[in-house]
Amino acid sequence: MHKENSKEFITTTALLGAGLLMAGPSLATNSKKMVVHHVFFWLKNSSSKEDLAKLITGLQTLKKISTVRNIYIGVPAATEDRTVVDSSYSASELLFFDDLAGQKTYQDDPIHQKFIADCSHLWEKVIVYDAVDV
Amino acid sequence: MHKENSKEFITTTALLGAGLLMAGPSLATNSKKMVVHHVFFWLKNSSSKEDLAKLITGLQTLKKISTVRNIYIGVPAATEDRTVVDSSYSASELLFFDDLAGQKTYQDDPIHQKFIADCSHLWEKVIVYDAVDV
Repeated sequence: MHKENSKEFITTTALLGAGLLMAGPSLATNSKKMVVHHVFFWLKNSSSKEDLAKLITGLQTLKKISTVRNIYIGVPAATEDRTVVDSSYSASELLFFDDLAGQKTYQDDPIHQKFIADCSHLWEKVIVYDAVDV
Repeated sequence: MHKENSKEFITTTALLGAGLLMAGPSLATNSKKMVVHHVFFWLKNSSSKEDLAKLITGLQTLKKISTVRNIYIGVPAATEDRTVVDSSYSASELLFFDDLAGQKTYQDDPIHQKFIADCSHLWEKVIVYDAVDV
């Protein structure tokens, strides 16, 4: 992770983003902007360390998918207990793609499909947030 | 973002994470692991481009906080419309910190406090997810 590069990126894209905001409603559909894909999983057996380990092992296979630019697999952090913080999930995957096409390729990749086939019995709930940089 | 570095990082920490999982319940409270802080905002006036622009301008001030290692400000991406995807939010901020202390410093920083004071009237709902790398 390179702090300064990222900050320059934000500064540059901030101007671009502001322009797009004024230009019309096409901001989120620009197919060439970086996509952040964040998925939160709630295990059926939320207290099972074995099931959590199986899920994390499955998530780690996703890094092999060609369009994945960065991947971070997490569990809830011990930050302050505030009402706005949802720490009820079991594990999370945070993926970066170059663009919408990269995300679609990931969805259809056999490695991703195998992960779902192998692990989906473990979870009872999933929430996905897909964001594009402004 | 450097793909190969990140993948090596995951590979290395996967082994560490597996060890921690077996060692006990202290995984999420390891204070020296990287923290991913992802916040989703729902505007009161969800169709107001002006309010969205104000919120994004406010979010962009957060990059100046010293413990912020990376920041990505986003809006919902035009990915597939699946039942698990929540695209109802207005904007998101994704921040990386070196550790729990960095996240706490950010919460208390005057720039963050000013953002809340200036912008909190714009939103009706916030959800925060804090994750540590496994």
